[in-house]
Amino acid sequence: MFKLIKQDGNARRGTFETVHGTVQTPVFMNVGTLAAIKGAVSTMDLKEIGCQVELSNTYHLHVRPGDDIVNQCGGLHKFMNWDRPILTDSGGFQVFSLAGLRKIKEEGVYFNSHVDGRKIFMGPEESMQIQSNLASTIAMAFDECVALPAEYKYAKDSHERTIRWLKRCKAEMKRLNSLEDTINKNQMLFGINQGATFDELRIENMKQIAELDLDGYAVGGLAVGETTEEMYHILDVVLPFAPKDKPRYLMGVGTPQNILEAVDRGIDFFDCVMPSRNARHCNIYTEKGYMSLKNEKFKTDMDPIDPDCQCPTCRNYSKAYIRHLFKANEMLAMRLCVIHNLYFYNKLTENIRKAIEEGKYKEFKKEKLEIYNSRI
Amino acid sequence: MFKLIKQDGNARRGTFETVHGTVQTPVFMNVGTLAAIKGAVSTMDLKEIGCQVELSNTYHLHVRPGDDIVNQCGGLHKFMNWDRPILTDSGGFQVFSLAGLRKIKEEGVYFNSHVDGRKIFMGPEESMQIQSNLASTIAMAFDECVALPAEYKYAKDSHERTIRWLKRCKAEMKRLNSLEDTINKNQMLFGINQGATFDELRIENMKQIAELDLDGYAVGGLAVGETTEEMYHILDVVLPFAPKDKPRYLMGVGTPQNILEAVDRGIDFFDCVMPSRNARHCNIYTEKGYMSLKNEKFKTDMDPIDPDCQCPTCRNYSKAYIRHLFKANEMLAMRLCVIHNLYFYNKLTENIRKAIEEGKYKEFKKEKLEIYNSRI
Repeated sequence: MFKLIKQDGNARRGTFETVHGTVQTPVFMNVGTLAAIKGAVSTMDLKEIGCQVELSNTYHLHVRPGDDIVNQCGGLHKFMNWDRPILTDSGGFQVFSLAGLRKIKEEGVYFNSHVDGRKIFMGPEESMQIQSNLASTIAMAFDECVALPAEYKYAKDSHERTIRWLKRCKAEMKRLNSLEDTINKNQMLFGINQGATFDELRIENMKQIAELDLDGYAVGGLAVGETTEEMYHILDVVLPFAPKDKPRYLMGVGTPQNILEAVDRGIDFFDCVMPSRNARHCNIYTEKGYMSLKNEKFKTDMDPIDPDCQCPTCRNYSKAYIRHLFKANEMLAMRLCVIHNLYFYNKLTENIRKAIEEGKYKEFKKEKLEIYNSRI
Repeated sequence: MFKLIKQDGNARRGTFETVHGTVQTPVFMNVGTLAAIKGAVSTMDLKEIGCQVELSNTYHLHVRPGDDIVNQCGGLHKFMNWDRPILTDSGGFQVFSLAGLRKIKEEGVYFNSHVDGRKIFMGPEESMQIQSNLASTIAMAFDECVALPAEYKYAKDSHERTIRWLKRCKAEMKRLNSLEDTINKNQMLFGINQGATFDELRIENMKQIAELDLDGYAVGGLAVGETTEEMYHILDVVLPFAPKDKPRYLMGVGTPQNILEAVDRGIDFFDCVMPSRNARHCNIYTEKGYMSLKNEKFKTDMDPIDPDCQCPTCRNYSKAYIRHLFKANEMLAMRLCVIHNLYFYNKLTENIRKAIEEGKYKEFKKEKLEIYNSRI
């Protein structure tokens, strides 16, 4: 289903076919944790800003409204009125980052809900069942996301358990896709590479999961405390062992700079809450540099954030107006900034695709890094 | 500038020409206190839901961002990107309802800002200057909104002072409209009828302000604690003395039922925060009755709020989805509900206009009152 159109160095230009349409890669997925983008951005807005894939969170939707509810509503696509691809994470990361007291056992994880404290058990089978209920386009494997820095012994045990879990995920997904009542019988499964910051564990892990012939491969457990250099190093080390004919997804990353570097190492899929979270604090990405709209100097600045930007915010509203909305605590400020920042990320990957097609990725990256490292 | 097209009983179907376009009356103005509709609704959204006139608040904009800032940005229309009529209230109501310690003198009112406590003075001239700075289409006279119930003596003194203030407003507006730097040299002025709940004061007041030949006349000081019957009674008593060839505006009112009754008594303009405020608490107006979307029974209800409603919310999203968004504290819930409720109010006045044109207003009112008094 993944087709490599063009390679420029290690940077890959591809297409990924799904039952909900074809994804042009590299792609940045727009995060709507609870089946909605933060900042009152609707799926109508998402279409206008060029979002290709929406990402929702298995754990959050399991807690609220419940995957059984979403299933009774016809699955996530119908529930949120979005007809393009949706990727659901497995809940693994949230279990390890959000939930209260937890116990990791061979069968899965026992933990408390972060909303009402009730006891929840989630293992590979449960994660697949929830994601099958949600009927996303792409399901993620249930993994353990090890906190960094990690002990070698713990990381090794964890990577081995995560592979055993991955095999159970694959079997369960196959079973679920064959059931008559399943909404999306073509649900795809991406495996997740783990191994903390240990090169040999990462490689060993990737070699083993590559053999499982999954629909795609993610690199997980990064952007959780390691340095940027460590992250790039792991990509350098592990990606040569990822199947060439499958998409590679760097989970939860990152800044525009991170994306440029990761594409250069062969990553195809990205997701991150950064553009929308920063937007909600008035921090804005532009093709001229990073900026804070709160700055006094924009008080009467009637130009858009970026006159060359074609997003609905820049086509209609000025810096002075958006700054006022922020100062006055008007929700519209957040919406306009989230729209702009997500458009920026979506456009960035569009430009990345073009640069790879033209065989100019290295120059493109160099030029863009300089801009994105500057502030205006 | 006001043209009466058709009268049906006391209900009036008219047009009101302004430099920013023609308003079809009766009209419901959509309230954007701080130059933005609460709930992240943009002016693009406003156009889609049939908003004819946007209403912003002089006092609030004077405090944040400052009318000088809005003026430097080219006036409210340019500032908020809205090319249809804007009405600004005078600040009078906010001074009396929001501000801290205040002293009313012949020259105006001394009070403290509700945001930072700083001392502010506002009199008729200041209010006109601020509104001229904002460059709205219609400015409202600076009045005293007397708290109800009021003493006769106080109400009489206040109504007389408000008339003296109105004359000063008119003179100042004339002066401001003649200045070279004024952005909207055709800014219109509406007078405001006061007199608390005393019939003879209300009538005396209306007679006197009618002589000033203003662009329109508002009935103020209502919906502040009196009963609905008292409000209708005042309209019955005072409207016969309002000029027939000028629009009449009932300030801050109200429920759909209030609007139906007030139109039947000859009111042309309305504004109210109720549809957007209720929307933010999930309380929804429909042509089948009033409802709370929080209701458990909508948990898996994939129908829109109202299948016959053509608003962007009903065309795209289900009750189950919006209910989930509310429960999950997603801002999008508010936006979708504000859009629906404002569309409902805008559509209501559109249907009112049609009923008057067809000479069927009484039947229309009766039928609609029954629906709007019911809950679903």
